[in-house]
Amino acid sequence: MAQRLFDLKKENMDRTRLFQQIQKKKSFLCVGLDTDIEKIPQHLLQADDPVFEFNKAIVEATCQLAVAYKPNLAFYEAMGPRGWESLAKTVAHIRTTDPGIFLIADAKRGDIGNTSAMYAKTFFVTYNFDAVTLSPYMGLDTVAPFLSFTGKWAVVLALTSNKSATDFQYFTDGKSKKKLFENVLEKGQSWGTPDQIMFVVGATKAEAFKGIREIAPDNFLLVPGIGAQGGSLEEVAHFGMNGHCGLLVNSSRGIIYASAGTDFATRAADSAESLRKEMEVHLRQKGLL
Amino acid sequence: MAQRLFDLKKENMDRTRLFQQIQKKKSFLCVGLDTDIEKIPQHLLQADDPVFEFNKAIVEATCQLAVAYKPNLAFYEAMGPRGWESLAKTVAHIRTTDPGIFLIADAKRGDIGNTSAMYAKTFFVTYNFDAVTLSPYMGLDTVAPFLSFTGKWAVVLALTSNKSATDFQYFTDGKSKKKLFENVLEKGQSWGTPDQIMFVVGATKAEAFKGIREIAPDNFLLVPGIGAQGGSLEEVAHFGMNGHCGLLVNSSRGIIYASAGTDFATRAADSAESLRKEMEVHLRQKGLL
Repeated sequence: MAQRLFDLKKENMDRTRLFQQIQKKKSFLCVGLDTDIEKIPQHLLQADDPVFEFNKAIVEATCQLAVAYKPNLAFYEAMGPRGWESLAKTVAHIRTTDPGIFLIADAKRGDIGNTSAMYAKTFFVTYNFDAVTLSPYMGLDTVAPFLSFTGKWAVVLALTSNKSATDFQYFTDGKSKKKLFENVLEKGQSWGTPDQIMFVVGATKAEAFKGIREIAPDNFLLVPGIGAQGGSLEEVAHFGMNGHCGLLVNSSRGIIYASAGTDFATRAADSAESLRKEMEVHLRQKGLL
Repeated sequence: MAQRLFDLKKENMDRTRLFQQIQKKKSFLCVGLDTDIEKIPQHLLQADDPVFEFNKAIVEATCQLAVAYKPNLAFYEAMGPRGWESLAKTVAHIRTTDPGIFLIADAKRGDIGNTSAMYAKTFFVTYNFDAVTLSPYMGLDTVAPFLSFTGKWAVVLALTSNKSATDFQYFTDGKSKKKLFENVLEKGQSWGTPDQIMFVVGATKAEAFKGIREIAPDNFLLVPGIGAQGGSLEEVAHFGMNGHCGLLVNSSRGIIYASAGTDFATRAADSAESLRKEMEVHLRQKGLL
């Protein structure tokens, strides 16, 4: 049933390959494709598929500066079936442009059993992503079906960048004295290898990265929240980087909406390059280049 | 951007109207449309849109017996863009067949800010659902955008029916001695009125319903897990029913896959009627009919 929408050969991206890409590009930048048809430059609206045209231009302008792209599913779903067409075309275009790119579906799915297996098929087979963001609320049953795909990743929410992350993620277990997000980091590691499991940790919680690295030294962390949300790349790199970098730092609006004019792609590249440059400094300081 | 895919006038379903439907149909049944093209009867596969044809037949056979339908988004997404077409047609058909039906998108979304707002638009505007299931892991920021739509519902995961629900949901806070799911029930009530917030509580956790009703006496509970997963309708009704019923009990596979032959729709109706009958007994026992 989960028919592949396109067929492109690509290698599985394990930690080693991901780190190779990071070294090659001197960047651990992930570009978030939160593409909103109401925010893209006016002149694109005449195209057959403005969302795809926008993504295509952004990808072409930034793919030497980024190791990963992260389409935010909400923006595609809201457009109805044609949004999913734009998504599929975007993924195919990224695969053709640079087969070394790591592709994350920011879907934050969280279901169980055959439903979760169906989500895994959707993103890994139908849409050919490398990784999917998942909510841990329902436990291992959510994540397990994603781990049965060789070379694919589950990116589990741990400590998120938003204000109400404190509603439940800091809940402290009476027995273990550990917070919920710490427990997610611990249990999450028992679910799969660091070549399968990544965690989401918000950049706005930079003070927590030290403790998080004590719990999860080897896993990659997907880090949203720099730029618009106020997190500091320097602090994230300082506290979060490990021996194979171990970080994918995401920027969405700061890059893709750097300009609303016809120069949007070059301005996106400028913005991405400015982050990449800073990343290169941090990689050198850590002796990883 | 979030363009309505179809335009059908319908009334907002608050608790009062939902209870009126329950009394009218003598049923608090929700039929889960987990429609898997690999499981539907062979003879439908020649249709242009087999998933829609299947749903259409199921809805026509069961809509007098059920007050709600709950398409499981994973099954539609896995088919690519055409899965979303089938979903849109299904929703439109249900709205035309019976405008009193309560429609839940079982999407278990859980994001924040403008992303969460986009999901809300997707399901409430583009696809015209009454309610969406949501994961509480990221807190109020996930739920708030859904509550800004008049007459629409957020259905928040509290205690789920799966085995690994115990991974985190039973986590006990050192200070309050409350479990995580109890905290979700408490906090969730502060986010909106019982005409906006429903909670998911698995039928396999029937022993917990008494305590849950002490914490959340007024909210509707969406209850999966009877049938295939082993939960008992009798126990759920005994411990979970409140003065306006307050329960939507879901059955998916037990109804829609009651037969794999050409009689699938009548067999689905039989299966739904058998549950509805039992529900009528419980409603009478509680003095609600």
